[in-house]
Amino acid sequence: MRSKTQVAIIGAGPAGLLLGRLLRLSGVDNIILEARDRHYVENRLRAGLLEQPTVDLLDAAGLGDRLHREGKFHEGFELRFGGRRTRIDMRELTGRAITVLYPQTEVVKDLLAARDKTGDLIAFEVSEVEPHGIDSDRPTVRYRDAGGSAHEIQADFIAGCDGFHGVCRPAIPSSLVKTFTRDYPFAWFGILADAPPISAELIYAHHARGFSMHSMRSDRVSRLYLQVAPDDTVENWPDERIWTELQLRMGAEGSPRLNEGAILHKSITPMRSFVTEPLQYGRLFLAGDAAHIVPPTAAKGLNLAVADVSVLSDGLITFYRDGDRSILDGYSELALQRIWRAQEFSRAMTELLHHVPGQDFEARLQRARLEGLVASRAAMTTFCENYTGLPFAGRIHH
Amino acid sequence: MRSKTQVAIIGAGPAGLLLGRLLRLSGVDNIILEARDRHYVENRLRAGLLEQPTVDLLDAAGLGDRLHREGKFHEGFELRFGGRRTRIDMRELTGRAITVLYPQTEVVKDLLAARDKTGDLIAFEVSEVEPHGIDSDRPTVRYRDAGGSAHEIQADFIAGCDGFHGVCRPAIPSSLVKTFTRDYPFAWFGILADAPPISAELIYAHHARGFSMHSMRSDRVSRLYLQVAPDDTVENWPDERIWTELQLRMGAEGSPRLNEGAILHKSITPMRSFVTEPLQYGRLFLAGDAAHIVPPTAAKGLNLAVADVSVLSDGLITFYRDGDRSILDGYSELALQRIWRAQEFSRAMTELLHHVPGQDFEARLQRARLEGLVASRAAMTTFCENYTGLPFAGRIHH
Repeated sequence: MRSKTQVAIIGAGPAGLLLGRLLRLSGVDNIILEARDRHYVENRLRAGLLEQPTVDLLDAAGLGDRLHREGKFHEGFELRFGGRRTRIDMRELTGRAITVLYPQTEVVKDLLAARDKTGDLIAFEVSEVEPHGIDSDRPTVRYRDAGGSAHEIQADFIAGCDGFHGVCRPAIPSSLVKTFTRDYPFAWFGILADAPPISAELIYAHHARGFSMHSMRSDRVSRLYLQVAPDDTVENWPDERIWTELQLRMGAEGSPRLNEGAILHKSITPMRSFVTEPLQYGRLFLAGDAAHIVPPTAAKGLNLAVADVSVLSDGLITFYRDGDRSILDGYSELALQRIWRAQEFSRAMTELLHHVPGQDFEARLQRARLEGLVASRAAMTTFCENYTGLPFAGRIHH
Repeated sequence: MRSKTQVAIIGAGPAGLLLGRLLRLSGVDNIILEARDRHYVENRLRAGLLEQPTVDLLDAAGLGDRLHREGKFHEGFELRFGGRRTRIDMRELTGRAITVLYPQTEVVKDLLAARDKTGDLIAFEVSEVEPHGIDSDRPTVRYRDAGGSAHEIQADFIAGCDGFHGVCRPAIPSSLVKTFTRDYPFAWFGILADAPPISAELIYAHHARGFSMHSMRSDRVSRLYLQVAPDDTVENWPDERIWTELQLRMGAEGSPRLNEGAILHKSITPMRSFVTEPLQYGRLFLAGDAAHIVPPTAAKGLNLAVADVSVLSDGLITFYRDGDRSILDGYSELALQRIWRAQEFSRAMTELLHHVPGQDFEARLQRARLEGLVASRAAMTTFCENYTGLPFAGRIHH
């Protein structure tokens, strides 16, 4: 079957869904193709610390209702090292910025619900997705639907929002592509525990035994992380060892011990930085994880995808409204500026908090960075400006 | 010959001389031993960018007259990268801080002149200097004077201000010592040129070809630096190549070209970070280059020596005045906090501005750090707080 649309979006993660939403709000037709089924997409567990600019854009896209009702608005967080505790007051330091704990899963549910209302197509469980003719004026996407029938969409543009393992990035000729990768010498062991969090705010803890982090899913369920070796396994960590280690690393003057409880989920996540350049070729544009991966420390992954979409939607809408392709043509360059800023902050926050085994010199410098951070209002402000999110470069149209 | 004093100071560089001066002002007897002759000490060329706290302490020590008359007070500096220029206004950003260009040689001359007036001993051209009994209550220093006669000084304390290659650091049992070293993959090629500087302020320039820097000795003489490979040689750099390279790396929108002129001096300086811990053992205390080396980028070497002396003099004077040894006993720990902060800033400024060959990922992150610095008032303020100098921990007594 052949069909036509203005923008063919590959991938129904936050990037693809939000792009579809913003295009629709400005009257630009789009189709979304997704390899997984709807249940999988709606239940994929990811972190979800939303930056101020992300919240603003979701609000503008009419997706803020439940977020404002159910999201936990954080005005600060706590930093622990050397047994000391420092609360960093984001709102007071930056004059405005906050973060919202609202899981990515919920953002995706809100986006799907909004798309259901406008009736735009999402084809789930597609396979053999192939972008064609991206360097021509008439690109197409071929795929098979859930039932196995072959389709071809003719589109003006293709948006590759299909993640790190997607088909779009490899569609750009490799001779034109430059990729940047850094693997960190540690991973995150994450647990979900049936135990009330000890604080309403996030706690980042640096310790000679390694990094740990205190977050929450609800008033009764804690989300906790431990730095482990990249080749460590879940089997190495019986519950008792997890709690002993967390209590040790999180210990600080005047703080209650972590509440312990049944561990509902365990997983290990490797830590990597990845960027591809450029983000566009002909009529194909990459956004989100298809273009970049950040280590999870600063929780920039989702926010960076939204930032990409802010610029890409601006470029596409401006083209359809005014016939002006300049923003679209400059998408890669503009988006990459913010991507590299976020990569750098993610790297710096990662290397500030994690223990690098066997590096005495680095450990002393790291301690000096931590001391320098909490000793200076300007340094804490700089940290919060980045942590709560740099402004998006794209304009909102509707 | 045997003699007695309260503090035997080994080394007549800025650390030893300033320590002697501060002790004298509080009535503490001291003797300084120096391996070189006076002419050498007075004419040893070193950079000399004085931090605000260094200027304050020199003022308090009665050494500020010529410094205020002849030193160039800088309220800002210029940062160049990507062909763009940004002036960083230190005074406006930090509310107080400045730096003073006043060569270390001149500081040393002022210190020697002040010591001449008080008549305290400096023995120049000593040899076979040996600290003894530093873990006892009666330490001594043995040496031979310029004429070859043997001497022994009995002192309450010994101050090791004798530089990286001095005899004091090795006098601490190696089993108690931890050292930290990092060699950078580049060096500084420095020239003195008979050419007027193009700006009254320092210019730090980042370029894909490498770092360069514009400074000055006077209104007619420029001091210029180029990043080179650590194994490069002066012979590789005929004058024409130096000027071509400097003009390329310093080039920026709206800036005049560097003035060229006869090159009066060429030298190559390797770049290293070094710290030893602890700074004290028994009755021996290390200060200045004997304890730490910083890469020259942030010009912290002299200032760090002065910061050490601020704490060490406080500890010694408090002991003699009140019989309270607690500051002296805590010298190493207190001084090391600031040393590591300065090491970290020196490393960060070095890695912000130099080109690291073959590291594409690092180059992109570095560019993001530069963009982030000039985009944020808080980030520039943090930079200036460190650049103009963290407060000293020692009290002034006289």
